[in-house]
Amino acid sequence: MLFKKQKKEDQILKSTIRGIIGKSPSNLELYKLSLRHSSTSDDSNERLEYLGDAVLGAIVAEFLFKKYPSKDEGFLTEIRSRIVKRDSLNTLAKKIGLSNLVLHSNTKLVKGKSNSIYGNALEAFIGAVYLDKGYKYCANFILNYLISPHIDLKDIIENTTNFKSVIIEWAQKNGEKLDFNIIKEEGTQHSKKFTCQISISDSVFSSGSGFSKKKAEQAAAQNACEELRIK
Amino acid sequence: MLFKKQKKEDQILKSTIRGIIGKSPSNLELYKLSLRHSSTSDDSNERLEYLGDAVLGAIVAEFLFKKYPSKDEGFLTEIRSRIVKRDSLNTLAKKIGLSNLVLHSNTKLVKGKSNSIYGNALEAFIGAVYLDKGYKYCANFILNYLISPHIDLKDIIENTTNFKSVIIEWAQKNGEKLDFNIIKEEGTQHSKKFTCQISISDSVFSSGSGFSKKKAEQAAAQNACEELRIK
Repeated sequence: MLFKKQKKEDQILKSTIRGIIGKSPSNLELYKLSLRHSSTSDDSNERLEYLGDAVLGAIVAEFLFKKYPSKDEGFLTEIRSRIVKRDSLNTLAKKIGLSNLVLHSNTKLVKGKSNSIYGNALEAFIGAVYLDKGYKYCANFILNYLISPHIDLKDIIENTTNFKSVIIEWAQKNGEKLDFNIIKEEGTQHSKKFTCQISISDSVFSSGSGFSKKKAEQAAAQNACEELRIK
Repeated sequence: MLFKKQKKEDQILKSTIRGIIGKSPSNLELYKLSLRHSSTSDDSNERLEYLGDAVLGAIVAEFLFKKYPSKDEGFLTEIRSRIVKRDSLNTLAKKIGLSNLVLHSNTKLVKGKSNSIYGNALEAFIGAVYLDKGYKYCANFILNYLISPHIDLKDIIENTTNFKSVIIEWAQKNGEKLDFNIIKEEGTQHSKKFTCQISISDSVFSSGSGFSKKKAEQAAAQNACEELRIK
């Protein structure tokens, strides 16, 4: 009787997962494990989360690398971290209905951890897809079932921090005089490194370097923002 | 004449790379790009480094996940970070002879950055292998040409920081009285969370939590080590 009930439950889970990943799971146990929060069992989803996190990172890295061939690594790194950050994965887990499948026993604990439990389960689930279906299928799942329908890349990119704008805005708001000065150029003609210094109300506040004037300014502005704890 | 010389150089590079990855490169330009430090050109290896870093992370993650089926994610994460850390990649790049191929123009710059330039080039090179040969071949390269012959896993594991031992050793050396106390147990029988408090010479110094007493002690010890800036 119990066995029959379990079988029925497994069938339901199987078809739910097929709805999420587009293919029926071969090794259902992997997916079950991915949905088990550490509050329910010693044998929980944390190892799969570690694996899924790494696989997701690589697949998103390649996706952005190919999608933005003229953007530098700073841009790619920033956009990737915005896609895979906890909040974003949490929202994704809810959007694809994974949050309804996650098992947890300790309501109090889960409440406190609610910001991460579903995002973590999504990473573990990605680990399960990877082990069950391989790299290619997992990449297809991430790109076509998660990112493409649910992630607004344009929005993410437009909201990427431009530290120079942030510090300019801050200075205007606070009535401070702000200056950007390129104070050093090093290296040969083909590999010049620039250093930018920011002064606030005529006293030197921060500096930063980079292989273009723009990058040096951004680096100096980022340092200033960190110093002032603004973003 | 110049063209002929270039062709000859390409052939040498091709066979050198075949020696490193076990297969002749199909797209030589990718590998050339991976070996170009940003001091030589605007079109440098930094984007490939971003990609290779992510791919390396995923492949090492899976390797450790499968090799240590009974180890928790904390262990796996720690060992992985020791394998892919800059020092380790730098040494690896030298061992496989990649360091001799890296192009850079600015000796001064390179000198200052010598701790990372070869490791970064190795990541970029992994990115090139991945794009040129695909995920499977890249995994094979990393596991059989880099890790298996050059990384001493046993040594890495034995030297993984045991923070409890570190703090005990510190206390003995400095003649301080050290106590570990489990001060809290929360949750149900099957998912207990423990909190450990460390006192140094009878005054509370740090605390940490985890899903076993041992993990709670390690967390508290790690916090103490960080506070004391010892490792």
